[in-house]
Amino acid sequence: MDASLAANRNQAVAGALFDELVRAGVRHVCVCPGSRSAPLAAAAAGTPGLRVFSLLDERCAGFFALGLAKATRLPAAVVCTSGTAVANLLPAAVEASHARVPLLLLTADRPPELRGWGAPQTIDQLGIFGPCVRLFVEAPLPEPSGAGLRHARALAARAVAAASGRPPGPVHLNLPVREPLEPAPGPADGLAALSLDDPDAARGRAERPWLRAEAAPAAPAPGALARLAARLRSTPKGVIAAGPLDADPALAAAAARLARLAGWPLLAEPTSQLRRGAHIGEGPLLGAYDAFLRDAGFAAAHAPDCVLRLGAPLTGKPFARWLERHPRAELWLADPDGGFGDPTHRAVEVLRADPGLLCEGLCQVLARTPDVPSAERRPSPWLQDFLEAERRSRRALASALAAEKALLSPRLVVELADALPEAATLFVSNSLPVRDLDGFLPVGRRSLRVLCNRGANGIDGIVSSALGASAAGARPLVLLTGDLAFLHDLGGLLAARRHGLDAALVVVNNDGGGIFSHLPVAAWGEAVGFEALFTTPHGLDLSHAARLFGATHDRVTGWEELRAALARALAGGLHLLEVPVDREADLAHHHALWRAVSEALAAPGETP
Amino acid sequence: MDASLAANRNQAVAGALFDELVRAGVRHVCVCPGSRSAPLAAAAAGTPGLRVFSLLDERCAGFFALGLAKATRLPAAVVCTSGTAVANLLPAAVEASHARVPLLLLTADRPPELRGWGAPQTIDQLGIFGPCVRLFVEAPLPEPSGAGLRHARALAARAVAAASGRPPGPVHLNLPVREPLEPAPGPADGLAALSLDDPDAARGRAERPWLRAEAAPAAPAPGALARLAARLRSTPKGVIAAGPLDADPALAAAAARLARLAGWPLLAEPTSQLRRGAHIGEGPLLGAYDAFLRDAGFAAAHAPDCVLRLGAPLTGKPFARWLERHPRAELWLADPDGGFGDPTHRAVEVLRADPGLLCEGLCQVLARTPDVPSAERRPSPWLQDFLEAERRSRRALASALAAEKALLSPRLVVELADALPEAATLFVSNSLPVRDLDGFLPVGRRSLRVLCNRGANGIDGIVSSALGASAAGARPLVLLTGDLAFLHDLGGLLAARRHGLDAALVVVNNDGGGIFSHLPVAAWGEAVGFEALFTTPHGLDLSHAARLFGATHDRVTGWEELRAALARALAGGLHLLEVPVDREADLAHHHALWRAVSEALAAPGETP
Repeated sequence: MDASLAANRNQAVAGALFDELVRAGVRHVCVCPGSRSAPLAAAAAGTPGLRVFSLLDERCAGFFALGLAKATRLPAAVVCTSGTAVANLLPAAVEASHARVPLLLLTADRPPELRGWGAPQTIDQLGIFGPCVRLFVEAPLPEPSGAGLRHARALAARAVAAASGRPPGPVHLNLPVREPLEPAPGPADGLAALSLDDPDAARGRAERPWLRAEAAPAAPAPGALARLAARLRSTPKGVIAAGPLDADPALAAAAARLARLAGWPLLAEPTSQLRRGAHIGEGPLLGAYDAFLRDAGFAAAHAPDCVLRLGAPLTGKPFARWLERHPRAELWLADPDGGFGDPTHRAVEVLRADPGLLCEGLCQVLARTPDVPSAERRPSPWLQDFLEAERRSRRALASALAAEKALLSPRLVVELADALPEAATLFVSNSLPVRDLDGFLPVGRRSLRVLCNRGANGIDGIVSSALGASAAGARPLVLLTGDLAFLHDLGGLLAARRHGLDAALVVVNNDGGGIFSHLPVAAWGEAVGFEALFTTPHGLDLSHAARLFGATHDRVTGWEELRAALARALAGGLHLLEVPVDREADLAHHHALWRAVSEALAAPGETP
Repeated sequence: MDASLAANRNQAVAGALFDELVRAGVRHVCVCPGSRSAPLAAAAAGTPGLRVFSLLDERCAGFFALGLAKATRLPAAVVCTSGTAVANLLPAAVEASHARVPLLLLTADRPPELRGWGAPQTIDQLGIFGPCVRLFVEAPLPEPSGAGLRHARALAARAVAAASGRPPGPVHLNLPVREPLEPAPGPADGLAALSLDDPDAARGRAERPWLRAEAAPAAPAPGALARLAARLRSTPKGVIAAGPLDADPALAAAAARLARLAGWPLLAEPTSQLRRGAHIGEGPLLGAYDAFLRDAGFAAAHAPDCVLRLGAPLTGKPFARWLERHPRAELWLADPDGGFGDPTHRAVEVLRADPGLLCEGLCQVLARTPDVPSAERRPSPWLQDFLEAERRSRRALASALAAEKALLSPRLVVELADALPEAATLFVSNSLPVRDLDGFLPVGRRSLRVLCNRGANGIDGIVSSALGASAAGARPLVLLTGDLAFLHDLGGLLAARRHGLDAALVVVNNDGGGIFSHLPVAAWGEAVGFEALFTTPHGLDLSHAARLFGATHDRVTGWEELRAALARALAGGLHLLEVPVDREADLAHHHALWRAVSEALAAPGETP
């Protein structure tokens, strides 16, 4: 709005802030109810180009905005009132920081003179998000002047630049306001003259943002590129491993081509976006490594000399254990933000480069070099072994999974992959579901966007995160989660009901934390309070949760029924698909699948 | 346990820590599921004298512990795993800090060498609670030595001392552990010799805690006592006002006696614990001030010279507005922790004293002085006016409330007061319910413990806080909350189901945030997105929430039905009593009640 038309300074400055957020590319804002934040809420509602979502719970709002930002790759904003409301944003802020997701946390505050003097809903909000925000600014009290409005506009642009910078992440603007909080005329707010005195401050600069500060893509340093290219050329025994990564089709294709040119297998985790898509024919892309690297024989017999990792550390343990077994393997990390994502401290080089630019650069070097091992014609024995292990594992898994009639979680992944159309979005929760996805999602040409909160790997906020992605227009949107993560963010479902969001919520219900059965602590039973403190069974009938929030509910009892329910759910609306899974049977089934792979690897006739 | 019998260093040190927490007075611990925290969970489960509650959601666990600590006046502990789990404790930590409730936040962490290197569920936990903890300690990695165990024991004692100190509040111990996380024998953990080498470190000191550091009650400084006593003696036009305060019967009696000796009315907010109890006959105790101080005529005609406030700032606005109208009134604050709870900056003195000791000290001085205004025989005109205003207001309110047949929130407070037995606990949520309680809870002899999260006044965590009080043995336990606060912490109900807790959850359901209708922003309607962003109606059928968590559900349609449902609920079990209230009718009813009081004050015959 034109600040010279504003009723008071609060309205004028909040209006300028949101106007400029939109000019800087923000499209979505989540607003939580509150009184101190009223000028912000009203400004958000009155700003063209902004979709406003009202959310009750600030923790949910934080994760909802995270889902919006992940799905759109644009910064999403959250507005909340002062007090503990702000504290509830911390979990999403931590996740956004680690996952490098741009979030704008706009927190209303009492003016400085009321802080620390017992005013209600007044806490110390300065720096409350600690080291996890890229920028923290305590804004001045709104001033009805050209200078005050220019600052608000520049601050909005700068906040977006910081949130979208290197690395992207959350930004916290603490915004104090004095009364009036409603758009009543303020005392001596002489804003009317502004449209003549400082028209840009009042209305923004014509057809451009106030201030641009675009992030540049990180090109690989020439020396680092040359060092890695030399390694790729000289070392047949290497792998490329893709961990959690927001890869686009261009990067996916470049990574596959690089693997082909180098003659190295490409281990593609689903959360890297490389497991599925049109690029899979362009290189030796493997998806069954979680199973065959568990095989002690294969892992021992195949000592890598070099590993190039794209994205964050891989989710599954078998890959990490395989590297531990071969401590001389050189680990190279590609990270545009120069992160040191290597808890084993074995990395030899962090390539501070965009993975796509790095892979393309390496492909160019390798393609120019005449002595490239011509993997296209004749794979090296190393690559042959991996391709054969992949083939055998896939076959063993496929037949064992198809034979499994009981509802168990590994086959659920395959059923989802079959049911989901091209370019669907699958939000997957941490703990067992993301591991099952890694273990059992087949390689395929049909693309699938896989989102997961792999920044800090918490189970919190998963329903809200997924619904945020749906609100951003991801269609169809499927959430795959366990029952505990679902219950942890049960209240998140309110947003689906209030905003009419479409989502298929697939809940693997094993009545508690199934992952603990996979950990050594399980063997100690009552000595450690295993059932009461780790598994924590709840016995809830989730159909009531569905009814409360207006979702349909299917508790499926077989695969046919699951397919039918999924087909209905993917057509739109809000659906809860409960897949009851027996925890012990599921654990036994996982072990049986891994044994089947080991047996296939050891089978005579062909040497893997 | 005897550390010399422990399987490994983690078990030994965690065991010593919990053993010493119990010796220092901790009786309750909330444990959230996690892997890194396994040694802590197992030690908690294995420590005699400790009740362990398993909670899924760390945010709920924080508030549940807050409720435990409030109800028992003892520090309660929370154990959680590393990562965003810790971030979820911040809302309760902020509330505990402002409300001065002793909480022990025991967060497991990865060892230092894994932090910042991309390990899963690893975030920067050092100082994550910022200025709201009284003590933060990053513990060393567990050491299987006498020195390591002595430190763990001393640390536990010190943490409890800090949490129970001046002022009480949360304490954060960050506890790194390396594997094994299960009680498997650790490499070279030569603990067996400890029982001979350092038996106290291994088993704790015989029949005493390792280290005592008891907080002393804060007696008033003699000079301050004399200054205030002189004021009380010389000033007839004074009031004593009791805001949120954990007053015991002795303080209540002393405050009432002081009011009688000084001839000052005592305005007793329900959250001060002074509104109801056997002490009410001992002094001029008023409970209808929220209504009569709203009356412009009464407020203008009665200019106080001096106000002594016990506890935190009062909840209702009429008292604050009355003081604003009379800026020369001297405000004295009694706060044992020397807090400056005065957002109007009008206080002339902060009495750093326990309110009970202060009132008793003042009573002694006043009783010794021969020229005390003999309020017992003949109240001053000032006191007479207040007593008359109280009488008229009570009568007007009682008859208007009794005449109201519709389900509206003011009469609900009266019905609750009638239904609750001696020494019941009423947990009340912020926003409208606590204001209604202040406005309409009658003064009475039957005691009632009123708990409310008035530290930072958030609506978050209210279900969990109330259930924590129930888990501590508060019987019967009634929660009075609005629908939005109830939904904000819906997942908190899981604890009631899992631990078989008794509670009557009375939800005033006006389908959204009714408080916003009381604020100026309401007048601006769609211009500020009023309905969508402030009121936020949801239309949920709460009976499904009750069924999900195994509570009975009554949606009452009249007062008889409410009484019957309350009677059933108070007998034990988990009950959701939904009281549907029309938002607009409720607002109009509040205004009608205040008008009725004004009319009663203005009635001829008697001058108020």
